[in-house]
Amino acid sequence: MPEVLAVNGRSVCPTDAAVSACDRGFLYGEALFETMRAYKGVIFRLDDHVARLKGSAGFLGFGDNLDAAALAQAVRSAVAESQLADAYIRVTVTSGQGRGLTAKPVGDHTVVVEVRQLAPYSPHLYERGARLMVSRYHRDERSPLTAHKITNYVLTVLAKREAAAQGYDDAILLNSRGEVAEASVSNVFIVKEGVVLTPSCERGILPGITRQVILDLCPASGLRASEVPIGVDALFTAQEAFLTNTLMEVMPVREIDGRTIGMRAPGPVTRELARQYRLAVEREVLH
Amino acid sequence: MPEVLAVNGRSVCPTDAAVSACDRGFLYGEALFETMRAYKGVIFRLDDHVARLKGSAGFLGFGDNLDAAALAQAVRSAVAESQLADAYIRVTVTSGQGRGLTAKPVGDHTVVVEVRQLAPYSPHLYERGARLMVSRYHRDERSPLTAHKITNYVLTVLAKREAAAQGYDDAILLNSRGEVAEASVSNVFIVKEGVVLTPSCERGILPGITRQVILDLCPASGLRASEVPIGVDALFTAQEAFLTNTLMEVMPVREIDGRTIGMRAPGPVTRELARQYRLAVEREVLH
Repeated sequence: MPEVLAVNGRSVCPTDAAVSACDRGFLYGEALFETMRAYKGVIFRLDDHVARLKGSAGFLGFGDNLDAAALAQAVRSAVAESQLADAYIRVTVTSGQGRGLTAKPVGDHTVVVEVRQLAPYSPHLYERGARLMVSRYHRDERSPLTAHKITNYVLTVLAKREAAAQGYDDAILLNSRGEVAEASVSNVFIVKEGVVLTPSCERGILPGITRQVILDLCPASGLRASEVPIGVDALFTAQEAFLTNTLMEVMPVREIDGRTIGMRAPGPVTRELARQYRLAVEREVLH
Repeated sequence: MPEVLAVNGRSVCPTDAAVSACDRGFLYGEALFETMRAYKGVIFRLDDHVARLKGSAGFLGFGDNLDAAALAQAVRSAVAESQLADAYIRVTVTSGQGRGLTAKPVGDHTVVVEVRQLAPYSPHLYERGARLMVSRYHRDERSPLTAHKITNYVLTVLAKREAAAQGYDDAILLNSRGEVAEASVSNVFIVKEGVVLTPSCERGILPGITRQVILDLCPASGLRASEVPIGVDALFTAQEAFLTNTLMEVMPVREIDGRTIGMRAPGPVTRELARQYRLAVEREVLH
């Protein structure tokens, strides 16, 4: 089976897959998701993704009966059923069914797991480096929601569409102070005087799983890493810049708003961290 | 039939009502809704609600094939089928089915219309006046999304739960400048030196249909109305304050963060505007 869509543990044909019209995810956006990647059928950092989702569900008030182990097992089962080696996985969890803004959900969470053949980013993009624009849209670092992977991706869609319409590969969103927050679906890193820098969690970012892996890998590569505010000027004058997320891993950035970043992409630090990331994947899932 | 739930024009039992798990409203929050009220079976300001939704769909990039007249007719049909005189109506419209953040939806919009017996706010609340708190959560007036009734109501739910947990009837949300934006699901008005004041649309509010009706009714009552920034101090020292939305109409405010507003609620201007609103309803739907 090339593709699996499982709703509340039951695998269904994608055209038949349905959730209740009274689901609070549908009605009120009370829903979280995670995107994961499987390598040779093994999901990288599954527990980290499930822990983040569970933590966010707690923040939103529907974490209590959410069983992290069962959720992880549901994802593993769907991947196994797909028989896919390199897979894209999305798990969506809502608070359940319930009408009325502050109503307690009736019954259980809704859990949708989707597994598809991974459609990797173009190798050309990794060689050439991504061309980005600074978006007119921003992340609100003061909102407590920004740090949670809530299904409301409307602003992200607008930013991505704007970037595509202007011929860019993606967009960087600033926060309301004008500092760098993140790219549309990835975290932003720059290299300055040999130090790896990325905005800290309170600057309007999603605390990415890949972002954390990269931060953890720096010392082993003899690199110093720091979470600091990054202004637009610092971005433009960086020696290197790269993006991270689960699906893209480490993506070099070539230029931003038409200005070339550093000497050439990918720079040596970006290449080293991309290599280290692959080694971490091999250690954890390809053994 | 006491209740109607119609999905894409087909009336279904609420427990069976389903939308696709690949619906972009469910996956990405690409969905809008409107709440309406029927009096004696006639929907007040139906065209205004449909026009607002259609305008927002255009902003979000899925307005093109959305037929406003057909949407209005779908709402009217559901209300007629319910045979309810005083009804709560919610219509939810998503961009349709489609996986991938910037994918074009496949096929038509998803339209869910829900009609239920109106559960009015307690008469006691109108007599006593609502007791509000100023929320720790805020509306981001710089976000272009704040003015659109997107289904993402997570922050609203948090604000309402916080207010209820602390014994308040509702919460007022400031914007990021510290000015009054709106209450959790209603617009805020105050009366100062006899003038009716409410935050303007760029201050982080949803441009309410009821809000506009009230603004339009002021001249006929010999009242001057103005859309201005309202600081927290101005709120606390107002002669009167009231909230408006489709379901509550005009709700007097008695106190905010424990401080009594004006002399007593409801004040004379609030009472007059509540009366004028009812007269407008009678003119338009109860003839």
